[in-house]
Amino acid sequence: MSKAISIFDTTLRDGTQGEGISLSADDKLKIAKKLDQLGVHYIEGGNPGSNSKDIEFFKRVQELRLSAKITAFGSTRRKDSQAEHDANLNRILESGVKATTLVGKSWDFHVHTALQTSLEENLAMIYDSIAYLKRHGLEVMFDAEHFFDGYKNNPEYALAVMRKAEEAGADWLVMCDTNGGTMPHEVHDIVSVLAGTVTTSRLGIHTHNDCELAVANSLSAVRAGAEQIQGTMNGYGERCGNANLCSIIPNLQLKLGYEVLEPDRLKQLTNTARYISEIANVYMPVNQPYVGTAAFAHKGGIHVSAILRDSRTYEHIAPETVGNRQRVLVSELAGQSNILSKAQELGIPFDPENENTRAVISKIKDLEHQGYQFEGADASLELLLREANGDLKELFVFESFKMLVEKSAGKPVISEAFVKLNIDGNSIYTAAEGNGPVNALDNALRKALITYYPGLQEIHLSDYKVRVLDDKDATASKVRVLIESKDYGNSWSTVGVSGNVIEASWEALVDSLRYALIGQTKREDYTEIPTAAHGLVNH
Amino acid sequence: MSKAISIFDTTLRDGTQGEGISLSADDKLKIAKKLDQLGVHYIEGGNPGSNSKDIEFFKRVQELRLSAKITAFGSTRRKDSQAEHDANLNRILESGVKATTLVGKSWDFHVHTALQTSLEENLAMIYDSIAYLKRHGLEVMFDAEHFFDGYKNNPEYALAVMRKAEEAGADWLVMCDTNGGTMPHEVHDIVSVLAGTVTTSRLGIHTHNDCELAVANSLSAVRAGAEQIQGTMNGYGERCGNANLCSIIPNLQLKLGYEVLEPDRLKQLTNTARYISEIANVYMPVNQPYVGTAAFAHKGGIHVSAILRDSRTYEHIAPETVGNRQRVLVSELAGQSNILSKAQELGIPFDPENENTRAVISKIKDLEHQGYQFEGADASLELLLREANGDLKELFVFESFKMLVEKSAGKPVISEAFVKLNIDGNSIYTAAEGNGPVNALDNALRKALITYYPGLQEIHLSDYKVRVLDDKDATASKVRVLIESKDYGNSWSTVGVSGNVIEASWEALVDSLRYALIGQTKREDYTEIPTAAHGLVNH
Repeated sequence: MSKAISIFDTTLRDGTQGEGISLSADDKLKIAKKLDQLGVHYIEGGNPGSNSKDIEFFKRVQELRLSAKITAFGSTRRKDSQAEHDANLNRILESGVKATTLVGKSWDFHVHTALQTSLEENLAMIYDSIAYLKRHGLEVMFDAEHFFDGYKNNPEYALAVMRKAEEAGADWLVMCDTNGGTMPHEVHDIVSVLAGTVTTSRLGIHTHNDCELAVANSLSAVRAGAEQIQGTMNGYGERCGNANLCSIIPNLQLKLGYEVLEPDRLKQLTNTARYISEIANVYMPVNQPYVGTAAFAHKGGIHVSAILRDSRTYEHIAPETVGNRQRVLVSELAGQSNILSKAQELGIPFDPENENTRAVISKIKDLEHQGYQFEGADASLELLLREANGDLKELFVFESFKMLVEKSAGKPVISEAFVKLNIDGNSIYTAAEGNGPVNALDNALRKALITYYPGLQEIHLSDYKVRVLDDKDATASKVRVLIESKDYGNSWSTVGVSGNVIEASWEALVDSLRYALIGQTKREDYTEIPTAAHGLVNH
Repeated sequence: MSKAISIFDTTLRDGTQGEGISLSADDKLKIAKKLDQLGVHYIEGGNPGSNSKDIEFFKRVQELRLSAKITAFGSTRRKDSQAEHDANLNRILESGVKATTLVGKSWDFHVHTALQTSLEENLAMIYDSIAYLKRHGLEVMFDAEHFFDGYKNNPEYALAVMRKAEEAGADWLVMCDTNGGTMPHEVHDIVSVLAGTVTTSRLGIHTHNDCELAVANSLSAVRAGAEQIQGTMNGYGERCGNANLCSIIPNLQLKLGYEVLEPDRLKQLTNTARYISEIANVYMPVNQPYVGTAAFAHKGGIHVSAILRDSRTYEHIAPETVGNRQRVLVSELAGQSNILSKAQELGIPFDPENENTRAVISKIKDLEHQGYQFEGADASLELLLREANGDLKELFVFESFKMLVEKSAGKPVISEAFVKLNIDGNSIYTAAEGNGPVNALDNALRKALITYYPGLQEIHLSDYKVRVLDDKDATASKVRVLIESKDYGNSWSTVGVSGNVIEASWEALVDSLRYALIGQTKREDYTEIPTAAHGLVNH
């Protein structure tokens, strides 16, 4: 009883309606290529009637020769006019796509309030627009906006809209829960009714996440007869977002037995999701289902010892199926089994009977007691483990740092840092400004190291978090700083703890650079003291 | 056909299993108070058998005299032992709670793999533990771990576990989808079976979000007969999180017609969710359903003009129902009613037609746009409103501050601050050390003010939080500092924003002292420059 489901990705169109998301034509082409490798069936590129960026995309995407069908979006013709003379419909034809999605009204309230026309004219707008594009040989998806609200308000009219679209030749009738307010059992009931009335068109579903039910509603529609799901990667979209394909695809394929992607393509899911979040420059929640960095992370001591016996005890699927991986978080709640499995994961030989091993375990526990937290700082933990194993050499001998912040009335605040180090007997003293104290320290430290370790050029800090550990006496208590760093393909996190936020930041900064340089060798030929020519001051 | 549903909040226990979430006993008490104001029915405080922080919480929470039932968490007794001698069960009794949640195994695979005991002994562990706590008069919830996986693998055994718990007197049988891998239709079917077999116990549901279906699964269970939902605020929890009560509560109440919270309490939902995210220091996604800042945000164009005609066109509920608000991302049109209602609350006369009023509204909007957030900083908002109303006089004229942090190898880090102010024509220049940069600044500022305003002696900072506002380029991005201050009976919060963490802290510090001094008068007789004799240096 396995059945094929079409995945229609609208990250490039509806996804860009999300707050803070804006994609250039180049970004869109990169994402389209990646989606094609994942194996989605339709990629909606944009609205050629709305802006020149999308027109450029449709022109350039043809050169990529993707397997996925590229689709263009538009609305039904304007009221009281002819489809043949509708500029937006003609732009779709000009864009060179072979498939299109036309949105039209199916809620009588919207016909009156938003379109301000009659119910009959709306039916004509739908019929004419679809028929016009079908005459030009396009595959047509009709997206019935607010179909569920429309059906609840006036079922006869909502169904009449769908029948009219089918009569005009629409290949797909797509039911949209535009405002995202419909419950899964309502979706099931209403899709079942429509499934009982259509004869030639196939059914699709397009949901929004305003009730945190977009994934459930999509599955509900499929179980009632829909064969196409429209959604976005990572659930990007207006308000609370669209249906998240990163969850829908594995749910359909692994849980419900539908044919969606070729099985080996599913392994690219995590990588694709993270790549798109990088391109879109949108923070991916660590706890995102299936593809988040915490999706298969284990924190509790008892859970961890069970996981080590059999991972099915606390994992609903094998993380590798979707290209993710298991992580064991080291935390106050857990014991030494967490640390051992972390060492195992890193390929560091570790014998719990060995004295060295017991020493590092007790050091980690002592640090945790002081307020360090390694569950969010994998790289600092790895440094401790590698150090205990004798894998690390020191980068430099620390002598001192100074950090000065100065503000006078009416003038901008100034931050400066001064760092004194010794590398191979050479004393290095650097000064740098920054946008803030940590930035200034980071700049001065890199300036000191970069001529010895040119690889540092590629690295930048991508997140910085401060947590006060004891709020009883706030400005005199300990703080924990977590820093996330990135280079082209990787990111890693480090931690520092001190009563002084600047000292804690320094610790995390130094760990970040030490981690980045694991495996990199020093330029041994370099002996001069670095100059200010590296242009890092204003980073 | 309306029916009451109990909300069981486990933010303080299961929520803290989430990556990066760690709450002090103080944090837990603050959150419990806030949850109680929202009106949840059960608040699970922690596991008194696992750590001393939770024992402290259970002791101190009794003083708050909350309406919600406080519950303690534990496991069924150890295998091959007696309930009466089980340390963890006895800790629950010692914690002084009137209700408890006991977790036990219902998946035969787990009994063999994790517990490593027989199916019969597991049944005895469940029976003995529940019966023991019932004999001591506690309300007992039995959380059947992995109930759905267990039922799918061995339905007879999973049901036998529940019958045994019922026989022992459990008030609630809670079905847990511990690994989060169950589909909504499976939840419906399995809950229906159990509902057909229990006679005295009531049913509850506890789901996890690994398939992005925790909310849907909770609703599915309620529709099949469950009357209690266990979840967390903002969906915090291990891996992909627990069921998100911030979505479940309004879905049940507004969409499905169940009685959950008193209707006017629902208006506190957004504020509660954001408050808890601040305390937990966890970033809240803008697109979080119902309570996120983008949940009712409209990005312009056709949607906005329809929204302005009738907001039902693109909003599934009125945002005010859950205490959120509509935002139009292009043209700033919303929000002024919030400010007016705040002024009203403070007893500040405020006329929306008045030019002054319009100026302060536009100033607040501008500050919010820059990253200020007044939801967690009531005192800073009050200062802005009082300022606009002409209620405030300036405390001092700022001239400059300097802040120096210095660290040399092998020596402790040193923090010093220098503050230059002018009060009534008198130039005041102070220097102070501190345990960290903010403490040093605080000390130098107080030293400058305290002889004029002796009332400042009573005030201390009680919490300090830093949030990076934009993770694109971490050490060069804006930070928001929130400071909480206390005197004997009151606490208040202030905010500062800057690209520089020290400048942002200074802003929040100054606001904190300005707020403290509302209504206090200056010692007009004092003209000397203050000395270092005030003993504040080592705070």
